[in-house]
Amino acid sequence: MRITYCCADTAPEPWLEGLRAALPGAEVSLWQAGAPAADYAVVWAPPQQFFDEQPQLKALFNIGAGVDALLKLRLPVGAQIVRLDDAGMSVQMAEYVCHAVIRHFREFDGYESDMHNGKWSFRKPRSRIDYPVGVLGLGVLGERVAKAVAQFDFPVNGWSRTPKAVAGVQCFAGHDQLDAFLQASRVLVCLLPLTAETRDILNLKHLSLLRSGGYVINVARGAHLVDDDLLTLLDSDHLAGATLDVFRNEPLPPIHPFWKHPKITLTPHTSARTLRSESIAQIAGKIAALQLGEAVAGLVDVGRGY
Amino acid sequence: MRITYCCADTAPEPWLEGLRAALPGAEVSLWQAGAPAADYAVVWAPPQQFFDEQPQLKALFNIGAGVDALLKLRLPVGAQIVRLDDAGMSVQMAEYVCHAVIRHFREFDGYESDMHNGKWSFRKPRSRIDYPVGVLGLGVLGERVAKAVAQFDFPVNGWSRTPKAVAGVQCFAGHDQLDAFLQASRVLVCLLPLTAETRDILNLKHLSLLRSGGYVINVARGAHLVDDDLLTLLDSDHLAGATLDVFRNEPLPPIHPFWKHPKITLTPHTSARTLRSESIAQIAGKIAALQLGEAVAGLVDVGRGY
Repeated sequence: MRITYCCADTAPEPWLEGLRAALPGAEVSLWQAGAPAADYAVVWAPPQQFFDEQPQLKALFNIGAGVDALLKLRLPVGAQIVRLDDAGMSVQMAEYVCHAVIRHFREFDGYESDMHNGKWSFRKPRSRIDYPVGVLGLGVLGERVAKAVAQFDFPVNGWSRTPKAVAGVQCFAGHDQLDAFLQASRVLVCLLPLTAETRDILNLKHLSLLRSGGYVINVARGAHLVDDDLLTLLDSDHLAGATLDVFRNEPLPPIHPFWKHPKITLTPHTSARTLRSESIAQIAGKIAALQLGEAVAGLVDVGRGY
Repeated sequence: MRITYCCADTAPEPWLEGLRAALPGAEVSLWQAGAPAADYAVVWAPPQQFFDEQPQLKALFNIGAGVDALLKLRLPVGAQIVRLDDAGMSVQMAEYVCHAVIRHFREFDGYESDMHNGKWSFRKPRSRIDYPVGVLGLGVLGERVAKAVAQFDFPVNGWSRTPKAVAGVQCFAGHDQLDAFLQASRVLVCLLPLTAETRDILNLKHLSLLRSGGYVINVARGAHLVDDDLLTLLDSDHLAGATLDVFRNEPLPPIHPFWKHPKITLTPHTSARTLRSESIAQIAGKIAALQLGEAVAGLVDVGRGY
């Protein structure tokens, strides 16, 4: 059995060593052009040429949560795309989003700035009933985030393409209920997969439906957000602010207006990092199951896009 | 039935109106020297003179979580001190502490500073197994905070004077287990009542027992912390930082070294504010119960100090 590794922006050696240790019978190597075709692949943003040289690929493991970059490519017929089951990402997303929600709701940014300027002063406490949080996308990550936010007694709404039920979350589903979901929310968290249907979903029309003084947290993909529409609504004060971890072009280009916007908090696509040891253990377990002809969780439906 | 209101740093009118609405049979008034003695009192940091004029007081309601300021005074014989049951404070404490723990653990302060300076760069993700969080004090607030932190998969230790059991929390109790609790923790959250036994508990000896690179979050009382000892351990890098909401003197005096310390995050005693409407509803319910001779929760044991 041959396993090939082709991940952009990632140091390969620890992954190769970890995969070799976890799958002693396998031949694990870093992909290079012209290498022998493999049975399994571990990938992140590989080039088209990589797939062109893998005619016999049975499955490929995507080490990030979103598979949108893969679905732009021509994949070998018969190769299944497998996503990792969480692998430590959902707790990181819950941390990131709760930190951003609390920081905005409690005005800790303002307090820290006051104190930094030697100013001891109070702000009127806000009522959490006025800060319903809407989570767009109720997959593994979205569900965990919605539950984590609900723990802090915020009203929580959730929206998904197909109907779901999450304890403690007011669930909306489908295109017909999207406007009602947005109108019921003040803080909006995007955790959708990027598909043709969700691209540009955070646009002027939709963000205008949020309650006045809304707040946007995007931890999915930069292409969900229409950058200029966000800026328009921040400038008109319909939106109070945004916390953004993902961008249409990463790293965010130096001339982009987000960098210096006083109402936007930025992080460099670090909301949920792939944790190597958890991921390797999962990939090894799934390869072993696939070799035995068993079903594995996380198969991507290419038509659906996630 | 007469109710008197004597709360420092609080606008009295909304409280008086709320209490009158909730207890239509009662005569509710703002305390002034020489006014008729009352049956019940709603207080925050009243002067000694207030109590000297209340010989017939049955119960007094403290609108903050800590009663340390009251216990410094001579109270009328027969007056019970009643604390509020949470009244929206525990969720605020959970928010404050989770925000501080996550912000430190995930280095969001560093990321925001980098991005503010136009710098897109990654830091190596930390492992939460290396960041056990210890919560000193497992009362209503401490228990909620410990459970909220545990939700983010951190190992959580708890310490209380008398043994307690909290799901998902490694519990330590009593003087004999304090050192072991501290040695097992890296992030330390103080939620103790201020008593003769707990004053100065965050001192050089105890804070030195935290794992190297420790972090201190004090949301209890300023007198729990020996300010100079914190500064010593920050300067020696045994401690990585602190988030402080409470201080020996409030407002924090302008010359205090905490103001400009690069490793200390400050807020102006705003971690858990008393929420008026919840508090008034509770006080009214407890007064009605006491009038009927029924037991109420939240009675303070003066000898114990909380």
